Amino acid sequence: MSALRYAIIGTGAVGGYYGGRMAHAGLDVHFLLRSDCAHVRAHGLRVESKFGDFSLPTVQAYGDASDMPRCDVAVVCLKTTQNAALPDILPRVLHEQGQVLLIQNGLNIERPVAAVVGERRVLAGLAFLCSNKVGPGHIRHLDYGAIRLGRYRADGEPAGIDATMRAIADDLTAAGLEISLVDDLQLARWQKLVWNIPYNGLSVVLDAMTDALMADPHSRALVEALMGEVVAGAAACGKTIEPAFVEKMLRDTEQMKPYRTSMKVDHDEGRPMEVEAIFGEALRSARAAGEAVPRIEMLYQQLKFLDGR
Amino acid sequence: MSALRYAIIGTGAVGGYYGGRMAHAGLDVHFLLRSDCAHVRAHGLRVESKFGDFSLPTVQAYGDASDMPRCDVAVVCLKTTQNAALPDILPRVLHEQGQVLLIQNGLNIERPVAAVVGERRVLAGLAFLCSNKVGPGHIRHLDYGAIRLGRYRADGEPAGIDATMRAIADDLTAAGLEISLVDDLQLARWQKLVWNIPYNGLSVVLDAMTDALMADPHSRALVEALMGEVVAGAAACGKTIEPAFVEKMLRDTEQMKPYRTSMKVDHDEGRPMEVEAIFGEALRSARAAGEAVPRIEMLYQQLKFLDGR
Repeated sequence: MSALRYAIIGTGAVGGYYGGRMAHAGLDVHFLLRSDCAHVRAHGLRVESKFGDFSLPTVQAYGDASDMPRCDVAVVCLKTTQNAALPDILPRVLHEQGQVLLIQNGLNIERPVAAVVGERRVLAGLAFLCSNKVGPGHIRHLDYGAIRLGRYRADGEPAGIDATMRAIADDLTAAGLEISLVDDLQLARWQKLVWNIPYNGLSVVLDAMTDALMADPHSRALVEALMGEVVAGAAACGKTIEPAFVEKMLRDTEQMKPYRTSMKVDHDEGRPMEVEAIFGEALRSARAAGEAVPRIEMLYQQLKFLDGR
Repeated sequence: MSALRYAIIGTGAVGGYYGGRMAHAGLDVHFLLRSDCAHVRAHGLRVESKFGDFSLPTVQAYGDASDMPRCDVAVVCLKTTQNAALPDILPRVLHEQGQVLLIQNGLNIERPVAAVVGERRVLAGLAFLCSNKVGPGHIRHLDYGAIRLGRYRADGEPAGIDATMRAIADDLTAAGLEISLVDDLQLARWQKLVWNIPYNGLSVVLDAMTDALMADPHSRALVEALMGEVVAGAAACGKTIEPAFVEKMLRDTEQMKPYRTSMKVDHDEGRPMEVEAIFGEALRSARAAGEAVPRIEMLYQQLKFLDGR
């Protein structure tokens, strides 16, 4: 295990699960919290997990980034709708060579972060995770949890795999998490959109779980048409997604337990949705590359309407 | 006023209002009802209207088409989702030269009716009407009420205006209704879709009234994009809709009182929606003419999903 010091920015369903596992494995982990801070300082974190429950009676918890020690890696587990807070937080919790690791959905979300800390200090992890926060400091992990980790490059080209990425991957592996390193982060982001755009979007607009979307022939055909537009958008941006990948997403979703997407959870609970990071950026990138994606645009417009109410 | 004898097939928000006005004016009107039959036989019809309330203590009401006299004009005011009943009803209520007048939304809905009574006996009226049935035999007319009346032709070409159409229009005018005769019914149907497709569809999918759809810039842009696809579909089918017509629909809707569309009323009350007549037929016609209408297709798929639940 490395001597890296980690800051977890946002200790909810994602940060509470990953950070909890890391602290449980003995890594040096510092948690930034908002509403749950007093509770977690007093009672620690509790994680119920498919892979085994555990409690951390004492965690290093902070309500203010200025109180945190300077860390080597800031693991950002906020919703992208809260990213406006990052320019204030990141310089306080990182030393001068410290790396940012965004565990967030969407496209091009690294750009404003790179503007704060510099292009060479931005990593991103794409999490395939079913997890909810069910109470203060109380996380319920339902399934999955694998992370695909890659390095940001402003030009969207493959950045390769380096020693820092390997050190972080070793730590996460030691914490019992499943990590794979990717040399092309932008390709990985487009691949993730193949799932996120149809299922997150339609689950909100049609008030539906994944199984219902797959069972009805019309919504299923729409899921496939949206996936086709993501593949076309990616191709226009120079990223090739093979048909076999799309097939696998459809098959995996059919075999999944009925799932309420994270965007639907956000919407049901009255929180803002990540419409811009996921849909807006995909739409703008595809369009700038000359690819009209009318169904993604329509879903974006529908979600913006619903998000604005 | 003519000596034409009218059958009203379906005495709800539409048939109750139009048929009520006609009977009130002294025309020979026979009403076919289902659930309200006993009530209307006992108590008649009651119409509250923006243009003046009236009651008809005694109306010629029937629960079974076989009991009705043979009429000159069968005015069909059912939802198209109930049109499977027409091959049984129409031959019972019409004499051999009797005409069918469909007051229904959608496209190509005349085709199966023409197969029953013959191409030359089918007329259609496009109603611009805000009306609800609020109780048995009790209609509340909120606004509008104009009808555009045209003759069906299987090849979709203009059928012109004939003496039968003029006689019916004279009767309806005498009943205080606003009637215009159109020589190109298929063009009038596509024009009506310019309004029905965006507002009926989005009001259901986004759970919204017309004013909300117009106020949000994203949903308004989507309304306009859907109207553009209707215009493109019509053009592919040989029907030209001028930009000024689209502009007028947008302006009129902005100036309307906030309105819950008839499709939303159906959906809210758990009734089947006219998805096939309005969206399915527009989609299939445009596609057969070589015009891809991806947003109409997506709205169709979303509505089919919601209608199937």
